[in-house]
Amino acid sequence: MTTSIHVHFTPASIDPEALRGCTTVAIDVLRASTTIVHALAVGAREVIPTLEVEQALQRASRSDRSSILLGGERHGKLIPGFDLDNSPLNYTPEIVRDKTVIFTTTNGTRALAKCASADVILIGAMVNLNAVARAALKSMLPVQLVCAGTDGEISAEDVLTAGAIAHEIQQLSQSEFQWTDSAMIARDYFIANSRTSDSLYAAFCESRGGRNLLELGYERDIARSVTRDLFEAVPMFHPESGVITLT
Amino acid sequence: MTTSIHVHFTPASIDPEALRGCTTVAIDVLRASTTIVHALAVGAREVIPTLEVEQALQRASRSDRSSILLGGERHGKLIPGFDLDNSPLNYTPEIVRDKTVIFTTTNGTRALAKCASADVILIGAMVNLNAVARAALKSMLPVQLVCAGTDGEISAEDVLTAGAIAHEIQQLSQSEFQWTDSAMIARDYFIANSRTSDSLYAAFCESRGGRNLLELGYERDIARSVTRDLFEAVPMFHPESGVITLT
Repeated sequence: MTTSIHVHFTPASIDPEALRGCTTVAIDVLRASTTIVHALAVGAREVIPTLEVEQALQRASRSDRSSILLGGERHGKLIPGFDLDNSPLNYTPEIVRDKTVIFTTTNGTRALAKCASADVILIGAMVNLNAVARAALKSMLPVQLVCAGTDGEISAEDVLTAGAIAHEIQQLSQSEFQWTDSAMIARDYFIANSRTSDSLYAAFCESRGGRNLLELGYERDIARSVTRDLFEAVPMFHPESGVITLT
Repeated sequence: MTTSIHVHFTPASIDPEALRGCTTVAIDVLRASTTIVHALAVGAREVIPTLEVEQALQRASRSDRSSILLGGERHGKLIPGFDLDNSPLNYTPEIVRDKTVIFTTTNGTRALAKCASADVILIGAMVNLNAVARAALKSMLPVQLVCAGTDGEISAEDVLTAGAIAHEIQQLSQSEFQWTDSAMIARDYFIANSRTSDSLYAAFCESRGGRNLLELGYERDIARSVTRDLFEAVPMFHPESGVITLT
């Protein structure tokens, strides 16, 4: 039985000790979470997140380069020398099948690192909303949803997604569980902004991450990231090996 | 013109440097903010917040005791040797008129201390909602709303009040201003929970602070604290003298 559900609006509020015995869901919906779900859902073998570009390049240099794709972004754009940016739409079956994707983004990777002491670490997005909610529930552990935010500040699009996952868990669960105040806030904020699919798209566009992507011309990535339940894929991070695979 | 509006869900996210040139509104609606508004609105001369009980007693011992009231709480209850607890309803004109109230609560006082570097420091509650929104707007400075929270955790009742004040500022203002994501979240959370006065009362009861007061038998304090616009009083904190007076 899930005993409680909590939302961290940014990773800063995480006490690593308090994650022991919990399931965390890391959320950086625009776009790292969404892209990682895409990559694994369409056939990538694994995703290896790194904090720094240099680490990604080193890791790639130790492997057979033909089995590797370098992906990620800095300031929303392709990193020089990398194969792929952080646009989920570019992670197609033809490109990623059976590849190891070495992936570096700023906020999403930092959020994952802060989750390392949890028993189960999942990656959540709107594109795998129902599947990640079911996986969290199935873990039978208290659930902590971790919003990546942007440069230490709260990002509305991550809170909307945390609210969506919390709400989905509530709908799926047969049993009562405890909500912290932050979880209630995220849930009600999501419900208030999701009366239609247009209203959720508008809220994503108005968010810090959304405004940034609109400026860079990535409307299609926002539209993709707000779409629910495209995939059953639930990425799981294994901190001991540093690898993300499907559950 | 107010250029921007931001909400801190807890004081932990405050960078004191970033408060310079800003107006802050400190919010601990259950019950410190509400009680301070009551005390000053019905005739107290000033309120002096202290972090520790010992400081309150020392400060009182330096003054003519007949002009002083000791007020506040620990764990929601009257402090031994104090005149008043933290129930706004006990701060009546007969009791507080022309008195200096030396006041100690845990979360509210800590939030005020974190606001010290702001240009203007106001105290906000539902009972002075419209008045505090007007005062913030009149300051012509960027507005930062500071939720006190409870023991470092987010309290929904403070976020609801921050959202109410943000929404009120928006309604009153003739000009556009920038919203941070946290301010949008607080506003939408308030709107979603304030369709009727009953729904706002229910949300207060469900909040961390509300559940705690219900357990202690303070339903009437919640009902009072959720009531809008009982007073025109806007308390202002002067960090150099450590005193709260009306603006």
